[in-house]
Amino acid sequence: MLQPLGDRVIIEITKPKEQTVGGIVLASNAKQKPQTGTVVAVGPGKLGADGKTIKPSVKKGDEVLYDKYSGTSVKYDGKSLLVLHDKDIAAIVK
Amino acid sequence: MLQPLGDRVIIEITKPKEQTVGGIVLASNAKQKPQTGTVVAVGPGKLGADGKTIKPSVKKGDEVLYDKYSGTSVKYDGKSLLVLHDKDIAAIVK
Amino acid sequence: MLQPLGDRVIIEITKPKEQTVGGIVLASNAKQKPQTGTVVAVGPGKLGADGKTIKPSVKKGDEVLYDKYSGTSVKYDGKSLLVLHDKDIAAIVK
Amino acid sequence: MLQPLGDRVIIEITKPKEQTVGGIVLASNAKQKPQTGTVVAVGPGKLGADGKTIKPSVKKGDEVLYDKYSGTSVKYDGKSLLVLHDKDIAAIVK
Amino acid sequence: MLQPLGDRVIIEITKPKEQTVGGIVLASNAKQKPQTGTVVAVGPGKLGADGKTIKPSVKKGDEVLYDKYSGTSVKYDGKSLLVLHDKDIAAIVK
Amino acid sequence: MLQPLGDRVIIEITKPKEQTVGGIVLASNAKQKPQTGTVVAVGPGKLGADGKTIKPSVKKGDEVLYDKYSGTSVKYDGKSLLVLHDKDIAAIVK
Amino acid sequence: MLQPLGDRVIIEITKPKEQTVGGIVLASNAKQKPQTGTVVAVGPGKLGADGKTIKPSVKKGDEVLYDKYSGTSVKYDGKSLLVLHDKDIAAIVK
Repeated sequence: MLQPLGDRVIIEITKPKEQTVGGIVLASNAKQKPQTGTVVAVGPGKLGADGKTIKPSVKKGDEVLYDKYSGTSVKYDGKSLLVLHDKDIAAIVK
Repeated sequence: MLQPLGDRVIIEITKPKEQTVGGIVLASNAKQKPQTGTVVAVGPGKLGADGKTIKPSVKKGDEVLYDKYSGTSVKYDGKSLLVLHDKDIAAIVK
Repeated sequence: MLQPLGDRVIIEITKPKEQTVGGIVLASNAKQKPQTGTVVAVGPGKLGADGKTIKPSVKKGDEVLYDKYSGTSVKYDGKSLLVLHDKDIAAIVK
Repeated sequence: MLQPLGDRVIIEITKPKEQTVGGIVLASNAKQKPQTGTVVAVGPGKLGADGKTIKPSVKKGDEVLYDKYSGTSVKYDGKSLLVLHDKDIAAIVK
Repeated sequence: MLQPLGDRVIIEITKPKEQTVGGIVLASNAKQKPQTGTVVAVGPGKLGADGKTIKPSVKKGDEVLYDKYSGTSVKYDGKSLLVLHDKDIAAIVK
Repeated sequence: MLQPLGDRVIIEITKPKEQTVGGIVLASNAKQKPQTGTVVAVGPGKLGADGKTIKPSVKKGDEVLYDKYSGTSVKYDGKSLLVLHDKDIAAIVK
Repeated sequence: MLQPLGDRVIIEITKPKEQTVGGIVLASNAKQKPQTGTVVAVGPGKLGADGKTIKPSVKKGDEVLYDKYSGTSVKYDGKSLLVLHDKDIAAIVK
């Protein structure tokens, strides 16, 4: 199991080749390759300026849209995972 | 449905090819391609330095002018959407 | 009508081709193309570090000198407008 | 008249071609073209982190040495002016 | 022995050539070469904005995934070590 | 006389060509050309985050080692001067 | 004698050509040339955000590993010295 640190979130990428998830077709902008995935693990959060922990804004199971070539991609137990920062998640697909 | 996170706003782009909306003709500056759209979803806001949430400055239904190649473009239910940060919205068209 | 957000100001550009306004001839520096215009709309201001709003330093009707290739240029009702940040206004022409 | 905003200062450039003013010969460093001029107008200052205004450190009439290719150069009533930020003034010539 | 300073952590790199550790196969993203290793030493932490020490989020013995070409690689007693900052550790492998 | 502003310090450069002062031979690093000089004038200091003035850490007469291609070089009364920021002074030669 | 300022530390470089000190063989990463040396002088520290001085984390006599092409190299009394910032010291060799 991979336990993300700080404000990191681990996502299982859904069909990275096809780029269609639940009816969504993603068009890429300049320098951006948007993709969707399902959150599989969430870090404890990071410290804010006032010394309190700011928790990531997503939870395990959320289907999310993330907006950048970011994070570290890892293959684990046959799954395509991506470790990225909470701020790189653009929206939750509901 | 897409629920934007933090200070993100989702906009439905209006006629991105023609660039004329309600009598406005947009001329692009160097490195900027201004466009207009209608706000379809607004995030909860982001934390300010004092730990209070700063809400986005637009609301659902606003017609807005945004000023940069920014955000993640998404096609959803046949609509052209753009997920961008509140700070990238330049003005409200009234 | 365009209502600027945050610390943005909308300016109606005066004779952008000729670069002479009220006796002023503008010479451009490296990477800078100074121009003048008249303020037509002012945003509500932005939040300072102490959580108070800092209002833009110009008001509607001011003739101003701005110092950069910045903002979003827009044509509206036949006028050449520029949406820019308060900090990009260099001086008021009195 | 040009009234500078924020921490800006307007300087009348003295002999920008020759680079000798009152016995001073200026040698340029890499990427820097030092020049001197006389302050003709001073902005009201900018807000510091504690919300108080920090006034520019020069006053009208000061002969100054400024250290960068910065600001907006303007010709006004036959004078060569430069609108620059207070921090770009290196020293007062006394 | 190497005692890391501040928020630095020293890691013993595990099979940097093969990139497979405990069933994990690492795929590299643009500009990133993810690797795993075992923590062998941890710094005392760094000062946060409130003057309190923020300890690194890993401890000696943790198997970690780090996400960048960062730190200083050192050979010591035949081991391949890497001195990096706590923030460059993406996740703990459990 | 040149009166430096803010945290600036004016230094009279000692033998900039030879690079040997008081037994010190300076070797340049990548992108750095270290030199020594004598402090001839010191600015009043700059404001810290708490609103108090932080005075430069050198005084008139100090022989100093500075570490970068920085500041504005000026010839004045036959002397080679350099106006630089306090933070660009690396050490005092005692 | 060289007295470093602020958070600077002066190090006497040990065998910069061979890169082996006390059994350590240093391998360089991209853009980094790690080296070791002995601390010969330590600055008084720098001001933290709360106005208190943060002392450098090493003391005279420490053998250290530093991680970048940083600082100003100086030859003094036949010794190869390096003036660098405290943050550029990666670890203490014990």
